[in-house]
Amino acid sequence: MSQKVKIVEMSLRDGLQNEKTPISVEIRVELARRLAQAGFQYIEIGAFVRADKVPQMAGSSEVIRKVLELQRTKEIPKTVRFAALVPNEYGMQEAISSGVHEVAIFASATESFSQSNINCSIEESFQRFEPVLALAKKKKIPVRGYLSVCFGCPYEGKVSEKKVIDLATQLYKMGCYEVSIGDTIGVASPLQVQKMFSKLKVKLPVKKLAGHFHDTRGTALANILAAYQTGVRVFDSSLGGLGGCPYAPGSSGNVATEDVLFMFEGMGVSTGINLPADIENNHWLSEKIQKQLSSKVSRAGLPKISRKTSV
Amino acid sequence: MSQKVKIVEMSLRDGLQNEKTPISVEIRVELARRLAQAGFQYIEIGAFVRADKVPQMAGSSEVIRKVLELQRTKEIPKTVRFAALVPNEYGMQEAISSGVHEVAIFASATESFSQSNINCSIEESFQRFEPVLALAKKKKIPVRGYLSVCFGCPYEGKVSEKKVIDLATQLYKMGCYEVSIGDTIGVASPLQVQKMFSKLKVKLPVKKLAGHFHDTRGTALANILAAYQTGVRVFDSSLGGLGGCPYAPGSSGNVATEDVLFMFEGMGVSTGINLPADIENNHWLSEKIQKQLSSKVSRAGLPKISRKTSV
Repeated sequence: MSQKVKIVEMSLRDGLQNEKTPISVEIRVELARRLAQAGFQYIEIGAFVRADKVPQMAGSSEVIRKVLELQRTKEIPKTVRFAALVPNEYGMQEAISSGVHEVAIFASATESFSQSNINCSIEESFQRFEPVLALAKKKKIPVRGYLSVCFGCPYEGKVSEKKVIDLATQLYKMGCYEVSIGDTIGVASPLQVQKMFSKLKVKLPVKKLAGHFHDTRGTALANILAAYQTGVRVFDSSLGGLGGCPYAPGSSGNVATEDVLFMFEGMGVSTGINLPADIENNHWLSEKIQKQLSSKVSRAGLPKISRKTSV
Repeated sequence: MSQKVKIVEMSLRDGLQNEKTPISVEIRVELARRLAQAGFQYIEIGAFVRADKVPQMAGSSEVIRKVLELQRTKEIPKTVRFAALVPNEYGMQEAISSGVHEVAIFASATESFSQSNINCSIEESFQRFEPVLALAKKKKIPVRGYLSVCFGCPYEGKVSEKKVIDLATQLYKMGCYEVSIGDTIGVASPLQVQKMFSKLKVKLPVKKLAGHFHDTRGTALANILAAYQTGVRVFDSSLGGLGGCPYAPGSSGNVATEDVLFMFEGMGVSTGINLPADIENNHWLSEKIQKQLSSKVSRAGLPKISRKTSV
């Protein structure tokens, strides 16, 4: 099995959209630049959603325009892919205009979460994806798919494994090049993760699957480990765990990227990211937004001597 | 393999001794009572060390006397075992006088940590254990052994796997009924843990091994999972992660018991502990000591619907 994982950096989208205070376009562009400098190759940078509903994502077009300009002047490496979330055809048209490299669509594994999150049934959400995917195909824009609340729902509790597998397969067959399986409220156990991915990979190639684990109850790294052991090699995470959990106020949301990097590096698994640089990013952002972010690695610092030699 | 783990509750010793502010005997006794009520069967409750060096452990005799009295009056179940840490023969004599059920001894896996922590070489520390173990045998008091910095040392960095295995074996052969392998500074990776325990269990029975993981860099649960997968069934933890890390000020030390329980319960592994009651213990203690403890589960709360049904 490959000793390499791909990290999808979510702080500028899934992180930011759960922060109470919006962050300026200037800081977002600088954060994107710093993340790219640290080695991230896949950065979700914004969303084309209604600014009255998600004010934190306002200005996404401008952020993308400026970031792409930095790529043209080589301040950001050309290889870095920037992605934006799009909920519907209108959002997709905006994404196309922005010039962003990739888009992401999102569905829920339960009806209640779908209604609450995007105000329509799961089936209706898939109908909305059709014109998005048609446009993406026409414009040759890769589409990533998210599936939320795959391990537990804040409204329904229990989530059907079969439903998750069916919907993930549907997203893949519709044209998503990768499907990210989300523990949106941080309730999964490693055993549940291992079972879910073992069944998923029967239906679609494991390299098309990603794990998106929230650390609301501290189990994200254990769940990432379980997914990794099952063959998953792509993980979503957010600098410093930026973004809280709307279902458990005051709690962590996204797993902190630095902690994910620390775990994998200690296992000799390459992430391609410069961890000390990312810890610097944490300290820079914490100061800019005047908030202590939740990464334990960034708080404690790296041990003084390389762990790689200690195995 | 057994679907059951044993949790050794460390908050009253390893937790407390790393807190800046000592906690009164009264609160310590009440915490012990509450932990026992929540279902813990093994509680490390104090240490017979020099009060000028570790002021937080002063009053251990009184705590033990009062807790044993509560056991006589059945306010604490008779089955609960209380243990105290002893560094030498003098401490052992005090432990015997106190009536505590079990004792624990501790050694380091590196010379630098041994010198810094207990001011003697590893060999000298083992010489000190001899009269302790002789007294224990005479009085039929079970002895647990700790081995510190098994996965990385704050002074030496790299730690020899062979040294860890030799010292753990030596502790076992000297008479320790269980040897707890410690990641004292929170630097282990799951792969390193898996390798270490795989080698250890060749030398001594895996059921005689315990895992003691600090969460300084967020990896404790992943490391516990890796140890569990290797066959380890005993884990040390501390309510709310009480006790910080002296090597990374402001950071977490012991892994939070509640988070460990949450992970195992989600996996269908029985801990014998009532998790909601332990979350209550966290909230009670946080208020008593006016400090937000670090357990993510206690902060976020349990999900509303049982996770067991969601697999």
